[in-house]
Amino acid sequence: MSETAPRTSLSTLQSFIQNAFVAVGMPHEEAGKAAALMAQADLIGQDGHGVSRLPMYIKRIQAGGLNVKPDFKIIEERAATALIDGDNGLGHLVMQNATELAMKKAETTGVAWVGARHSNHAGPASLYAMMPLKKDMIGLYVAVGSANHLPPWGGTEMLLSTNPIAVAIPSGANPPIILDMATTVAAYGKVKTAAQRGETMPEGWMVDKDGNPLTDPSRASEGFLLPIGGAKGYGLALIFGILAGTLNGAAFGRDVIDFNADSKKTTNTGHFILALDIKAFADPKMFKASIDNVWAEMKSSELMTGVSEIRLPGERLAQVTQDRTDNGIPLAPALRETLKELAADLGIAPL
Amino acid sequence: MSETAPRTSLSTLQSFIQNAFVAVGMPHEEAGKAAALMAQADLIGQDGHGVSRLPMYIKRIQAGGLNVKPDFKIIEERAATALIDGDNGLGHLVMQNATELAMKKAETTGVAWVGARHSNHAGPASLYAMMPLKKDMIGLYVAVGSANHLPPWGGTEMLLSTNPIAVAIPSGANPPIILDMATTVAAYGKVKTAAQRGETMPEGWMVDKDGNPLTDPSRASEGFLLPIGGAKGYGLALIFGILAGTLNGAAFGRDVIDFNADSKKTTNTGHFILALDIKAFADPKMFKASIDNVWAEMKSSELMTGVSEIRLPGERLAQVTQDRTDNGIPLAPALRETLKELAADLGIAPL
Repeated sequence: MSETAPRTSLSTLQSFIQNAFVAVGMPHEEAGKAAALMAQADLIGQDGHGVSRLPMYIKRIQAGGLNVKPDFKIIEERAATALIDGDNGLGHLVMQNATELAMKKAETTGVAWVGARHSNHAGPASLYAMMPLKKDMIGLYVAVGSANHLPPWGGTEMLLSTNPIAVAIPSGANPPIILDMATTVAAYGKVKTAAQRGETMPEGWMVDKDGNPLTDPSRASEGFLLPIGGAKGYGLALIFGILAGTLNGAAFGRDVIDFNADSKKTTNTGHFILALDIKAFADPKMFKASIDNVWAEMKSSELMTGVSEIRLPGERLAQVTQDRTDNGIPLAPALRETLKELAADLGIAPL
Repeated sequence: MSETAPRTSLSTLQSFIQNAFVAVGMPHEEAGKAAALMAQADLIGQDGHGVSRLPMYIKRIQAGGLNVKPDFKIIEERAATALIDGDNGLGHLVMQNATELAMKKAETTGVAWVGARHSNHAGPASLYAMMPLKKDMIGLYVAVGSANHLPPWGGTEMLLSTNPIAVAIPSGANPPIILDMATTVAAYGKVKTAAQRGETMPEGWMVDKDGNPLTDPSRASEGFLLPIGGAKGYGLALIFGILAGTLNGAAFGRDVIDFNADSKKTTNTGHFILALDIKAFADPKMFKASIDNVWAEMKSSELMTGVSEIRLPGERLAQVTQDRTDNGIPLAPALRETLKELAADLGIAPL
């Protein structure tokens, strides 16, 4: 996403998304919550997981593949755990609900783990990991990705998704440390972008069925994404898939529905959120000062030749968020066009 | 470790380790517990983290750098969390204590997270992740490594360790799925082994200070280990270090003492264990059947050219454990020689 694209304010974007959801039958209040989370994704720079996904969500709702009036149910509950059935609702609403429950539990118990089944795509992983920060808690979120893009290590059948993890840790004077990563070297969105731009991919992103490097993104369907660290990334994708999927009774492996390719079938997406109360371990002020010290230490390392600065995970997110809060959210012309068509289809005011 | 080396039974190895610890002042019962865990590390095939570490532990005890009569204290406690001060005791004993507490808490609360500070090297990560399996729980263990081997991404100062994670998930008819991995492409022990054998390292394990591939292991001190997935592995090492170290008031970054190079200074090693009770989410029998299904699905993938079999994390561990339970633990001649010298020094019966 070019930061020079025309900007839109957060509130304008939010109202637009809300109107779109209301137009396809989502109650006004729920639509507002979903819109706030989706616009937040764009605000923090996660362009691939914000309003750009709206047309797909709307298409799924219109096809009957997503429930706009879900009745969330707590299926299992203990003092520090819960399992929520999302009733095929939008992932954002399911996970906001789950995260609020986890935070409430962790306030008493110190840590809480809330899983969800029968959910859907929920946008960027960091969105949920960041929620506990306001309560001086650490957030850890894991999801089963919404399509399988890699085989088990040594295989050729795509049985695993890029199952992401996000962890958010508050600091004092510095931005929070926020890691948000797929378990593959490149996320699938990067391959799609390279294909659109006619660019070659670096070796290491994908291989073909014979294990040879695949660098032509237009041939992406003939190969697979490579997990980070080879068998290690396969192990992480597998473990995360089990914890976020299988444990919750959600889809994993051959059961995973490609969210982009099939708008009708229930995805039964699984995720979980862990909230960890810093106060159960340390004085939050002192802890945050320690994290400031971590920032200072990492930043003060001697630099490798050709490197201008050490970055911490979450640093770019904070910079982008500040810029977009001040100046609005850049939306590329092609996306604006798509959203204009969507507005016309739904009979709502364009952006 | 060659599996053709002469074998020693688990109980013989255990008694030997126990005698060694008793000889340097550890109470008989504690020495037995520590010996059981260390011998278990060898039994499951983690040769680099079992009895091969004994001479270093003994040296540290003799130098006054490790407390043989620690008084573990619970510094902070909530229903589902605790922070334990290990009083500079052996990491194995601290973490066994922490894991038992986590399991006890999780039985009621569903999940528990127990951190430790003022601990020491605890052997292989999988040892603690596996403990909750017997209660139909999932274990997740993270530690700050006992020496810094990599810089922040783009830097040249070694501020991070290979901070490992281990996760253990029970299955039904198959072995448990056990992931035990460093956040670097190669663990440092692999570099040491390559140096001993005069072998060249593959590109991707290490780089020099200019970022060029370093493949001569005798030059290891001039370079750094590479994190998995580049900046992603750096992010994981950073986050794990904060959660296992900083949050517990344990060492991280410049405070980390090289356990191998300095036997006197208190390491203030940090770790944490998370125990997750499967019964809080699903019927354990049904869950384990689902994990068997995961095994079957992964195994049934078409194979990449030149690959003979898909492996699951934990599969080799189960095979090695079975072989060593049946036939004893192979100990290389050089290690036997070292242990013979140790026995002579301590005035205990040799292996």
